[in-house]
Amino acid sequence: MVRVGIVGALGYGGAELVRILVRHPEIELAYLSSELEKPVRMSDLLPNLRGALDAECEVYDPKVAVERCDVVFIGQHPGWAMKHAGRFLKAGLRVIDLSADFRLRSPGEYEKWYGTPHDSPDLIEQAVYGLPELYRDAIADARLVANPGCYPTGAILALAPLLKEKVVDPDTIVIDSKSGVSGAGRSSVRLDFHFPELNESVRAYNVGVHKHTPEIEQELGRIAGRPLTVLFTPHLIPVNRGILTTAYGGLLGSGWTTDELVRRYRDFYHRARFVSILDPEVYPVTKSVLGSNYCQIGLKVDERTNRVVALSVIDNLGKGMSGTAVQNMNLMCGFPEETALDQPGVFP
Amino acid sequence: MVRVGIVGALGYGGAELVRILVRHPEIELAYLSSELEKPVRMSDLLPNLRGALDAECEVYDPKVAVERCDVVFIGQHPGWAMKHAGRFLKAGLRVIDLSADFRLRSPGEYEKWYGTPHDSPDLIEQAVYGLPELYRDAIADARLVANPGCYPTGAILALAPLLKEKVVDPDTIVIDSKSGVSGAGRSSVRLDFHFPELNESVRAYNVGVHKHTPEIEQELGRIAGRPLTVLFTPHLIPVNRGILTTAYGGLLGSGWTTDELVRRYRDFYHRARFVSILDPEVYPVTKSVLGSNYCQIGLKVDERTNRVVALSVIDNLGKGMSGTAVQNMNLMCGFPEETALDQPGVFP
Amino acid sequence: MVRVGIVGALGYGGAELVRILVRHPEIELAYLSSELEKPVRMSDLLPNLRGALDAECEVYDPKVAVERCDVVFIGQHPGWAMKHAGRFLKAGLRVIDLSADFRLRSPGEYEKWYGTPHDSPDLIEQAVYGLPELYRDAIADARLVANPGCYPTGAILALAPLLKEKVVDPDTIVIDSKSGVSGAGRSSVRLDFHFPELNESVRAYNVGVHKHTPEIEQELGRIAGRPLTVLFTPHLIPVNRGILTTAYGGLLGSGWTTDELVRRYRDFYHRARFVSILDPEVYPVTKSVLGSNYCQIGLKVDERTNRVVALSVIDNLGKGMSGTAVQNMNLMCGFPEETALDQPGVFP
Amino acid sequence: MVRVGIVGALGYGGAELVRILVRHPEIELAYLSSELEKPVRMSDLLPNLRGALDAECEVYDPKVAVERCDVVFIGQHPGWAMKHAGRFLKAGLRVIDLSADFRLRSPGEYEKWYGTPHDSPDLIEQAVYGLPELYRDAIADARLVANPGCYPTGAILALAPLLKEKVVDPDTIVIDSKSGVSGAGRSSVRLDFHFPELNESVRAYNVGVHKHTPEIEQELGRIAGRPLTVLFTPHLIPVNRGILTTAYGGLLGSGWTTDELVRRYRDFYHRARFVSILDPEVYPVTKSVLGSNYCQIGLKVDERTNRVVALSVIDNLGKGMSGTAVQNMNLMCGFPEETALDQPGVFP
Repeated sequence: MVRVGIVGALGYGGAELVRILVRHPEIELAYLSSELEKPVRMSDLLPNLRGALDAECEVYDPKVAVERCDVVFIGQHPGWAMKHAGRFLKAGLRVIDLSADFRLRSPGEYEKWYGTPHDSPDLIEQAVYGLPELYRDAIADARLVANPGCYPTGAILALAPLLKEKVVDPDTIVIDSKSGVSGAGRSSVRLDFHFPELNESVRAYNVGVHKHTPEIEQELGRIAGRPLTVLFTPHLIPVNRGILTTAYGGLLGSGWTTDELVRRYRDFYHRARFVSILDPEVYPVTKSVLGSNYCQIGLKVDERTNRVVALSVIDNLGKGMSGTAVQNMNLMCGFPEETALDQPGVFP
Repeated sequence: MVRVGIVGALGYGGAELVRILVRHPEIELAYLSSELEKPVRMSDLLPNLRGALDAECEVYDPKVAVERCDVVFIGQHPGWAMKHAGRFLKAGLRVIDLSADFRLRSPGEYEKWYGTPHDSPDLIEQAVYGLPELYRDAIADARLVANPGCYPTGAILALAPLLKEKVVDPDTIVIDSKSGVSGAGRSSVRLDFHFPELNESVRAYNVGVHKHTPEIEQELGRIAGRPLTVLFTPHLIPVNRGILTTAYGGLLGSGWTTDELVRRYRDFYHRARFVSILDPEVYPVTKSVLGSNYCQIGLKVDERTNRVVALSVIDNLGKGMSGTAVQNMNLMCGFPEETALDQPGVFP
Repeated sequence: MVRVGIVGALGYGGAELVRILVRHPEIELAYLSSELEKPVRMSDLLPNLRGALDAECEVYDPKVAVERCDVVFIGQHPGWAMKHAGRFLKAGLRVIDLSADFRLRSPGEYEKWYGTPHDSPDLIEQAVYGLPELYRDAIADARLVANPGCYPTGAILALAPLLKEKVVDPDTIVIDSKSGVSGAGRSSVRLDFHFPELNESVRAYNVGVHKHTPEIEQELGRIAGRPLTVLFTPHLIPVNRGILTTAYGGLLGSGWTTDELVRRYRDFYHRARFVSILDPEVYPVTKSVLGSNYCQIGLKVDERTNRVVALSVIDNLGKGMSGTAVQNMNLMCGFPEETALDQPGVFP
Repeated sequence: MVRVGIVGALGYGGAELVRILVRHPEIELAYLSSELEKPVRMSDLLPNLRGALDAECEVYDPKVAVERCDVVFIGQHPGWAMKHAGRFLKAGLRVIDLSADFRLRSPGEYEKWYGTPHDSPDLIEQAVYGLPELYRDAIADARLVANPGCYPTGAILALAPLLKEKVVDPDTIVIDSKSGVSGAGRSSVRLDFHFPELNESVRAYNVGVHKHTPEIEQELGRIAGRPLTVLFTPHLIPVNRGILTTAYGGLLGSGWTTDELVRRYRDFYHRARFVSILDPEVYPVTKSVLGSNYCQIGLKVDERTNRVVALSVIDNLGKGMSGTAVQNMNLMCGFPEETALDQPGVFP
């Protein structure tokens, strides 16, 4: 049994890790912690665990973490992992970080978007961007995985084949994403996320300046083989879970058909256990993947404007966060990729 | 491997059975059918199954069902099972019926509430009421299980210990239930359930005349050891899943405390893997059990009025329907009771 | 033109007052204030006012309030009005207080339920309980109106005729209320009301101990002509606005019919411009009164248990708060009762 | 008093007309009809009208309509108005049609998108496109007004100034709209709009082929002074009311700032009573305009990609349909434009 720890087990991401991992047959949940003043019963703060997990969330103590774990998930606030991951790595643990600390390859870009210099540029070198659909082999060998952001996961999966196959002009990409509110996290208790302010409402936020933008650009640029910029607009939708990404791009050349793109996507993702490409004229619904690690992608060539629309759905806490994190762990530990992740979404 | 069939696999209850059973290690999904004109791919109608289950839903054919299955779940409209279950039983299959056809012990009561005579009073004799928390042993031996209704499950679990222990006066019970809309089923497409009519709204329906009333009365009466009537009011809440039952009763004698009742409930349910009794002053939240087979119960003695309030939450499609159905199958087949059912609810 | 002020104009209750009053032809919004460090544009904090009201919310200053207003609405936190209303009254203003400070006739009851002694028992004497359907004439003459709580409004309107006409046994009343989240207020930003925690969920809270309980008991007791206790359980429903009250009572005598009760309710409320009694077997829907000052009531006699169910719906910010407050102002100022209040609810 | 009729008074659009018009001081609701077998009480089908309007919906009879009305609103299914509006016009009535029948100037375009030839090309000539912000004067003189579609209203108001002022390249426009479900209408009762299928979910539909596309192109093309095509993607959001339009365009030239665009929009809309342009970095929220005739627009220049994002919010049944229809009636009848329309949105 691989001994697994979670640092930051009480946020929505940590809670989803716990929910998935309690059913994982190859691991043992050896360490659950958070920055607390005193220990708490997990199920007192996460009522879905009552009857299913009788465990304590401990006051974080790095020595104990190192002692008890082979693999550690970090689900802390931005900036934490770049200060503390080194200690775990030196002790021989493998680390999967759910924050943005190791996602950007360039410390300069990090500083530009996050407003503070990076503490551990050397660790960036070691880190592998944890999107299994693109980097399966590198992840299997990694000691430090930078788990992707939720929006980037949806956007990259939707657009990767178009850039790989030179179908779209890399300078024309517009990404319009619609996210459920759990993406804001459990500690973000403020008027913006007060129930009556969000319910029965839709709005955009951080238009053009969201911190996930450089992450999307980095990964799409790698695939395209050259730098590119995207216009990214996130929206808040009054649902708990789910991201629908509607991505637009101008087609290179003419004569493209939706059928042809569907074929190419299916080729591109033929090894991807959790990605489904829908038939032409079928568009994905966030509800289809709720509570799961699946991603569904629909496509439409619009001949009138010679553009393509690529639409993906994920659960922002599943494939967009903790599902992929467990998938990464499975790869790193040599378990079948789908272990503990193969249940269908909750429908309806 | 036990070969399992579902007749009526495309409704919400059938879909939930499939979602649970695809992860069940001891069974094989041998037969999926519905009353169709031609076969369909399951995932074309249940988009959560894409990538997780590549199977067909067949046109119902009783011969094929009998040939291929050891156990069959029936998720058909009211009145179907009482006409067709006999054939399965004669052929040696075990049957779990999700409809109300075999829940009422009295054919007369059935006719009174369902408006039509019962076709198979003899089968009623054989049927076991499938609430494992009350009838675990009888279920293990049963050939025909009448799976409980969703409201009765919540109400009976909330009230059983109060009646068993003679804490409440059986003539004072009022049950006020709040249900998510999936309880109405997938085929009930009408203005009542049109999104804009229900969203941002709450209402009661079938006040005092809901068909689940005699089922609740029968089971509570059995526990109390004498006939009783309850006033039952169901409400529709704009959520997909979940039933909160708020049950009221007048206390017999005085001096009862919430602490004492919590103790008694924990005793009563000490073998019940899926029932949690909350500490005093903690009340259950439907979200805690979403997508799961768990039930949580909170209690409050109100000294001012000498009444007790018992509150339970279940997922109407989980513990309220398909979760319990699988739990019954596990018992009937000698599998560990929690097989494929032990995952925590989806939170948030 | 009557000069009207609002102290506490930025909460949900204050905002609703402003929304109603901007269309009132007989008054002038002369003073809008809150406990701020500096003035703000109303529409910066209440975005629905953009284009409709170009006004400032001022830093509260009692001298200015007294100078500029003939009538003042107080929408402050509990305990504020009992300290400050006296000043307004002395200066000759009429006061409508939206808090609970003057609702309970007994300072002792106030202290028992609110945990602090009452500062101005003398003002309690002057205060009129502002439910126009019961106290129309007294309100017209009042200098100080205690605007009812949202739950009490729904419960009292549902039950008053039953007690007045001695239809139910006063010792058997159970009130199960379902409320939208705006009832929690705009300043109650905490995890309990964080969108993902409430959405897709239902729960009870403050079972048997909610502070609105003594208010309901006081008013129902007045109508019944003797003290009584009720068991009151509030629930949170994931909608913004609306309260559905489901009230239960044991019938005195036998032979009651729903038809007969509908007749009596229509008599009781024949002068009540904003109360509609529904036909038998029709039950009210909160959506019907969203954004309005209307109340709808449905009734059901349950012969099987000899109980009655009375169901009422109101908008907790409309008839449950600011709508009634304006109705009270209309009565106090001699305006037609329905001025600025007669628009139908927003449907759907 | 102007005598007003509504043909099709029971759909969501008709219901919203009634809700607005019952408070209109200059008109009389002289005729309410629908295609019924027998008359019904309006409030039996529209429960928000109980207590507010005691009127019948009559079986449609053109003779009666002509006799009783000076102005008639048509809220019928597609294709009805082009067959019947002529009769009203000949009789001297003024007509406001809420369907798409007279919106497209070109009968050929109509046939292409609606799949059937146009019955009354001559009437198209007379019709004025009823967007007051663009065609105020022509509307005042019109006999036949083609009330705009909900999506086109949001999209045109968001983009008009950019095209008028040659800020964006007309060949680069992408429109991503998010709509509440009431836009589907009350008669569209089917599985797609069944509550559990939509709730907690987001999806796109009719990608690139929605019938509102040519309407948007026609009007934006008129403003741009040349034909253009747009890529339009509508999405369904689980709310009842509201459309958020996120429109993207490539900037012509460089150096544009959000400040400069905000200035130009305020100039462009300085006479538009119901349009508010938000300050830079403030983005509109659909809730702000719920139940109202207002539109709010936010802007963002993205220097990194040299694109602009224009975001508008409307209530699809208000400014997107019946609000604008009443605004058109006000202009046609010489009433102040804001009569019965000036109430702020319902918040929260």
